[in-house]
Amino acid sequence: MSSGITAPAGFAASGGTAGLKASGRPDLALVHNLGPSSAAAAVFTRNRVQAAPVRWSREVCDGSLRAVVLNSGGANACTGQPGHADAVEMAELTGAAVGCAPTEVAVCSTGLIGVRLPMDKLRTAIPTAAGALSPDGGADAATAIMTTDTVAKQAVWRGEGWSVGGMAKGAGMLAPGLATMLVVLTTDAVVDADSLQRSLSAATRVTFDRLDSDGCMSTNDTVLLLASGASGVPVALDDLTAAVTAVCHDLGQQLLSDAEGAAHDIAVEVVGAASEADALTVGRAITSSNLFKCAIFGRDPNWGRALAALGTTDAAFDPDEIDVSFNQVMVCRAGGIGEDRSLVDLSERAVHVLVDLHAGEHTATVWTNDLTYDYVKENAEYST
Amino acid sequence: MSSGITAPAGFAASGGTAGLKASGRPDLALVHNLGPSSAAAAVFTRNRVQAAPVRWSREVCDGSLRAVVLNSGGANACTGQPGHADAVEMAELTGAAVGCAPTEVAVCSTGLIGVRLPMDKLRTAIPTAAGALSPDGGADAATAIMTTDTVAKQAVWRGEGWSVGGMAKGAGMLAPGLATMLVVLTTDAVVDADSLQRSLSAATRVTFDRLDSDGCMSTNDTVLLLASGASGVPVALDDLTAAVTAVCHDLGQQLLSDAEGAAHDIAVEVVGAASEADALTVGRAITSSNLFKCAIFGRDPNWGRALAALGTTDAAFDPDEIDVSFNQVMVCRAGGIGEDRSLVDLSERAVHVLVDLHAGEHTATVWTNDLTYDYVKENAEYST
Repeated sequence: MSSGITAPAGFAASGGTAGLKASGRPDLALVHNLGPSSAAAAVFTRNRVQAAPVRWSREVCDGSLRAVVLNSGGANACTGQPGHADAVEMAELTGAAVGCAPTEVAVCSTGLIGVRLPMDKLRTAIPTAAGALSPDGGADAATAIMTTDTVAKQAVWRGEGWSVGGMAKGAGMLAPGLATMLVVLTTDAVVDADSLQRSLSAATRVTFDRLDSDGCMSTNDTVLLLASGASGVPVALDDLTAAVTAVCHDLGQQLLSDAEGAAHDIAVEVVGAASEADALTVGRAITSSNLFKCAIFGRDPNWGRALAALGTTDAAFDPDEIDVSFNQVMVCRAGGIGEDRSLVDLSERAVHVLVDLHAGEHTATVWTNDLTYDYVKENAEYST
Repeated sequence: MSSGITAPAGFAASGGTAGLKASGRPDLALVHNLGPSSAAAAVFTRNRVQAAPVRWSREVCDGSLRAVVLNSGGANACTGQPGHADAVEMAELTGAAVGCAPTEVAVCSTGLIGVRLPMDKLRTAIPTAAGALSPDGGADAATAIMTTDTVAKQAVWRGEGWSVGGMAKGAGMLAPGLATMLVVLTTDAVVDADSLQRSLSAATRVTFDRLDSDGCMSTNDTVLLLASGASGVPVALDDLTAAVTAVCHDLGQQLLSDAEGAAHDIAVEVVGAASEADALTVGRAITSSNLFKCAIFGRDPNWGRALAALGTTDAAFDPDEIDVSFNQVMVCRAGGIGEDRSLVDLSERAVHVLVDLHAGEHTATVWTNDLTYDYVKENAEYST
């Protein structure tokens, strides 16, 4: 059975090696929507410094796409007008190879910022990758977009006669706002572009948007959702949204599990908030605290650092009423000392931190990783 | 010549060992203003989760203080009503020992959050420390407030017939808003409390407020400025502000140089901003980026990470006009590739990053440290 983005009917994909990486690993992926529909939706980074491929894809993704070309081994960000021309040429090469207009091709790049792509290599490799397009190519495509990822990331949700598939890459620079470097989602449901966009926006808001591995927002984050309509099954908006959300959640948790150098996956669940916005603000304040993240690495349920972090927010709460639990042990009660912290076991990778603000009925969960030696090592050595 | 807080006339200080630290190192300091004036000013953390001593000191510091009692080995934060009673008792013990009202005594604590102080030990140690008060005790006091600091931090500025002295502790949890755990400043200038407060606020705004070692704002940050008037020299506000700013800057740079596990001291200077607020916002976005800080640790002039960080702000700029230099080499010009990054030498501890937004005439400098293995190690192991 075909996996990931080629699990839904009507899609072909391929992964290949253009030679962009010093390692010689696969670095080029193509996705082709064979139709009959070409409906598409997209969400991009909110960073104001946007890579050339993001600028291009944002411009052309107006509800319809036939293909996506993705490369690892170079972000084509901060490369000026020449970099923009490179992104356009990637779309042209892909359109020529699969038989569509360049404006029906989204471009995604990932890798080091501030380096031009070797276009001579891509001029050969893109036609070759197009020749390798296959309804079984999902796994190859997922492999070709990896950078510091240690495993390829795919997910599938199956409905009655239709499905949603996806692939993702991203292991660092996961950030509030949009947590993922590159994600392509596909569905064979019969759905119009407006519904597709509403479904994608709703799904990313509660998944990738709430994943903050290291607080750094990328210049290249892109999430695309393509619909082929090949199943012939019309799907209601709610059902589609649920399915897309499930696939995004699955991919998001895979990103978390493979985050650079991480030893723990941390879910910070905030309850009792006066609003969802307050719950999110508090969750993000905690997940962006280096001291809190170091403590988890050290298997220390240091609730004081959680309180110090949430104290910097303007969320509604009384500091003397806050409860904090680590893995079900309430180590902080009413803003003060609770259960014995030695009762908390943080030896497992999964950590659950529950914060009750006692200020209302709203909740939100934000996910992050701990801060480890290996995170520092990977990010101190990445470009050298 | 007496150093630090006892360099100005009219002050006595001492440092002692109450036994709050497992290491058995000094952990209790007293400062006594012998007058004739008892004018005082204070700046506290803006964290809404405030330690008991901060709540107490904020309440009593209404323009006049006679003494300060400071302890390391426990923050007395998130300790509820019993912790508040402990802080009050520390003021009472100190007032009784030096002969003033408890409401003339500020209390400062530093150490682990969420642990009660052993008051039985302090009941003995505070009177002993009062008995040791000396006009030469500045260095002992500076030593007694150290936690993970590796060196005691003192500074003096000498005017004509008057001076300003200071001591500081703080090596982690240095944050935007107020970068220092505990700072006591003294002066023998003749100055009223209003001028003292204006001088202190102006000084901290451009020094400690712009020092962000690890983005984490403490529950205990306190900066106090006491004036004895013992020199008999009246000092104009501008002169006082310049002197206090010089001492704060000196202490701030000492904090930076001794920040937990840091290998580089980084000054991010933002120029060409449309406003000072924009310059600060951009500076803080860069100094709070873990990826940027890891790159500096790896001696990598990764300007793309600086651009990615400032792209998350709402400051006025055109991404295609920004210049970034590392140690005088303009590696990013007009938002794109500039000089060869291999020309940048980041082997020295001091790093200067210059960001030109080309959007106006305002500037600001924010200081931070790199993110290193040792930072993670110290903060993963601190409480265990």
